[in-house]
Amino acid sequence: MLSRIRIVLVQTFHPGNIGASARAMKTMGLTDLVLVNPRAFPDEEATRLAAGAEDLVAQARVVTSLEEAVNDCVQVVGASARLRSLPLPHFDEPDDMAQTVIQNAHQAPVALVFGRERSGLTNDEIRHCTHQVSIPANPEYGILNLSQAVQILAYEVHRAWRKSADSAFTYQRPLEDTPPSREQFMHFQAHLTRMMQQSGFLTQPHARTQQQLQALFTRAQPSRKELSLLRGLLNALAPEEDKH
Amino acid sequence: MLSRIRIVLVQTFHPGNIGASARAMKTMGLTDLVLVNPRAFPDEEATRLAAGAEDLVAQARVVTSLEEAVNDCVQVVGASARLRSLPLPHFDEPDDMAQTVIQNAHQAPVALVFGRERSGLTNDEIRHCTHQVSIPANPEYGILNLSQAVQILAYEVHRAWRKSADSAFTYQRPLEDTPPSREQFMHFQAHLTRMMQQSGFLTQPHARTQQQLQALFTRAQPSRKELSLLRGLLNALAPEEDKH
Repeated sequence: MLSRIRIVLVQTFHPGNIGASARAMKTMGLTDLVLVNPRAFPDEEATRLAAGAEDLVAQARVVTSLEEAVNDCVQVVGASARLRSLPLPHFDEPDDMAQTVIQNAHQAPVALVFGRERSGLTNDEIRHCTHQVSIPANPEYGILNLSQAVQILAYEVHRAWRKSADSAFTYQRPLEDTPPSREQFMHFQAHLTRMMQQSGFLTQPHARTQQQLQALFTRAQPSRKELSLLRGLLNALAPEEDKH
Repeated sequence: MLSRIRIVLVQTFHPGNIGASARAMKTMGLTDLVLVNPRAFPDEEATRLAAGAEDLVAQARVVTSLEEAVNDCVQVVGASARLRSLPLPHFDEPDDMAQTVIQNAHQAPVALVFGRERSGLTNDEIRHCTHQVSIPANPEYGILNLSQAVQILAYEVHRAWRKSADSAFTYQRPLEDTPPSREQFMHFQAHLTRMMQQSGFLTQPHARTQQQLQALFTRAQPSRKELSLLRGLLNALAPEEDKH
């Protein structure tokens, strides 16, 4: 489904931006790149900046009109820093845009169109779009580098896809020890409480202090191994004669 | 409040990545850049890639240890492509991370820490972090360019800030004509209906067809001016003798 999402770059001036955009796309699972009248392409800079995404650059389709690039698409989103007076439906937030893109891409190709580095898209090119989107930014300095804009919108599309009902995306999780059982954990809490009393830290039963420290260790969510380390530490600090 | 959010780059190899990161920061309203042992800095490449953000590059603080860079921070998020075995609290999703960053930045500085282009952060450096975050990406090609990673996390922080209760962020909206009043709109619908009947398009009253076309024009949300254009078009197609 991500394969139906097309990135279209119109008259890109710097081939390096083509390469960096291809890299940005590939990190977000997109593969369909179309270039409308790129100024200099193919070019070493495009390959160099693509890093591990030269395959996308090599497969990129080059066409001579935006119409040709998007004719088969059911939705065409123009990414534009400056809003035009032509009142196309406009997304204030890229995440709202991405939701609709993911929906539509179930059926047919959808294109995200990016304009020239300096001047963006012409009014004529906006006419080929069904929607506009801008990336909310610093009002004093809001023009992102082209490949950065591609990265952000590709990221938002990937995010909408991850969060959609039928995506098979799995998060990379750090290796974690098994959590302890409740019995093991309560043994630890009991040991801690005895230490607090025997050491003179709690001169009289003081429920609140006891509870606060116990809560802290609960929040820390120690693994089985970590609990074992903690118990070892408590034992080293104050060996108990009667172990429970 | 965005001013309390610090970007820390550790031992960046390519000065161009420093410049591009500064640009990415500035578009998202961030200004506090700290460099830990950059390989080559200051450098022309950093200034060149910064585009309009050379002020951030010029003001960047250069230090010799990560500790020095984050000592005053209440939260330190390590951005890491590869999760470490040290089980720090980890954010699967940058947007969850950004919510906590915005919360904490009300009180005190918060740092987002990025490592070396090739090897990321060392285990020792992760120890200076309170949290880890990774950017969910293509499992087959998930390593983003350093300045792209900075752009995405800065974007997520800006997004969390925009959506927070007390942000004064206003969206750039396209100029829109006034919407028509209900009376004006119903006049148009009545005119359209008469045309459908008089032209023979509706040979007999056909409520469904009528409703469908009326609904289409309602969805289009014509401005006052556009309604006027539509009425002019209807008049040109079939001049009425009795105008209502």
